[in-house]
Amino acid sequence: MSPPYPVELLTLFPGMVSGYLGASILGKAQEKGLLSATVTDIREYAEGKHRVTDDAPYGGGAGMVMKPEPLVAAISAARARLPGAKVLLMSPRGATFAQVTARELVAHTAGLILVCGRYEGVDERVMSHLDGELSLGDFVLTGGEIAAMAVVDAVARLVPGVLGNVASSVSESFEEGTLEHPQYTRPPVFQGVEVPAALQSGDHARIARWRRWKSLVLTRERRPDLFARLTLSKADEKLLARREEEL
Amino acid sequence: MSPPYPVELLTLFPGMVSGYLGASILGKAQEKGLLSATVTDIREYAEGKHRVTDDAPYGGGAGMVMKPEPLVAAISAARARLPGAKVLLMSPRGATFAQVTARELVAHTAGLILVCGRYEGVDERVMSHLDGELSLGDFVLTGGEIAAMAVVDAVARLVPGVLGNVASSVSESFEEGTLEHPQYTRPPVFQGVEVPAALQSGDHARIARWRRWKSLVLTRERRPDLFARLTLSKADEKLLARREEEL
Repeated sequence: MSPPYPVELLTLFPGMVSGYLGASILGKAQEKGLLSATVTDIREYAEGKHRVTDDAPYGGGAGMVMKPEPLVAAISAARARLPGAKVLLMSPRGATFAQVTARELVAHTAGLILVCGRYEGVDERVMSHLDGELSLGDFVLTGGEIAAMAVVDAVARLVPGVLGNVASSVSESFEEGTLEHPQYTRPPVFQGVEVPAALQSGDHARIARWRRWKSLVLTRERRPDLFARLTLSKADEKLLARREEEL
Repeated sequence: MSPPYPVELLTLFPGMVSGYLGASILGKAQEKGLLSATVTDIREYAEGKHRVTDDAPYGGGAGMVMKPEPLVAAISAARARLPGAKVLLMSPRGATFAQVTARELVAHTAGLILVCGRYEGVDERVMSHLDGELSLGDFVLTGGEIAAMAVVDAVARLVPGVLGNVASSVSESFEEGTLEHPQYTRPPVFQGVEVPAALQSGDHARIARWRRWKSLVLTRERRPDLFARLTLSKADEKLLARREEEL
């Protein structure tokens, strides 16, 4: 068995993330020895009686800026614990995180160190100690904690063995560049709406056709940007020429 | 004083979000009466001794699908508690959340009900009971909980009064379509690297020029997509023609 995929989170608010890391799929992955997740308090690396971690920005302005010394010390200590791990700061200026990023990160088996700073305002001189900056999207959060939890969740799901069934990680949204088809479960009729006939047919080829058709149509309708990047097979093109009733 | 901005989260894992909602900026916003955040356990709306909330997908395949009845019952109850609130399901098929979405949501003072489902697989017949689907980005999470926390954080920051200083919400990343300029704090020299002279000058116009220049250059370099959408002023264009040493 491979050693667990190691993740370390550096944060000023360990309590905000440790609950989540112990719960849900992440807790189970750790119990199974597939993931090792640790949380380090950046404040432990701050000097002085008050262990100050932020200060006013040079040049003025609202808000506070995270001081470089505690962060750099915390990063160095984390690198010593996880040699070769990738160190990324969660930051709105970073590269936008996507499923392809999660794939790349999980392939880097030396692991991942995620730095959660104030989402706005980390002393720029910390950047040379990082391997990069990662953004969850074009929005502003208070800190990097939620963003880091999202990354850990998305990455952990891809560690082999974490999802009970391999298939469920392969056929999901974005893995093939499409949005996922609609899902239905019992009852067969809910508030007068019936589960589509194809899904109740028991005919596997027909079910696969219906799902692929729905997935392609949904992607074309909602995410023309993703649709434009798809490489459609001959079968896909034939499928798209059909109407739902014909499936 | 206006009534608090109301947010309700529907989830199968209340413990995963309640800690976060009570902490950090969100806890303070609630203490100040600016935000009211409640968490509702979807399972309370599930029938039967076992309160089952998911079931196998029609048509087969890995994973489970959230049943429509408990979710629809939970949504109806939440709508009764928060009349006029917008009900959004966190889902990878949704519209991509961005700062502009946060602005729209906070302007909708009737509030926000966020439904955290399994991120893959909610019975499609629930969709007609929603006002929309919202995605955090092109990646797959286990559930909607982290995504919902990110949305609540980004929205809560925009509720008037939540951030101590109004300025700090205005000058941040994405608000003006640009990435934020680098920040520095003490010490003036860290590991041989000095804080840029402009920021130490005390000259407000020069500081503003340096920051705008950095912000524009950073956006052009890292996010050509955002840069292309900017409306540059004459002053911006003149600024971009200069080199950093000249600022």
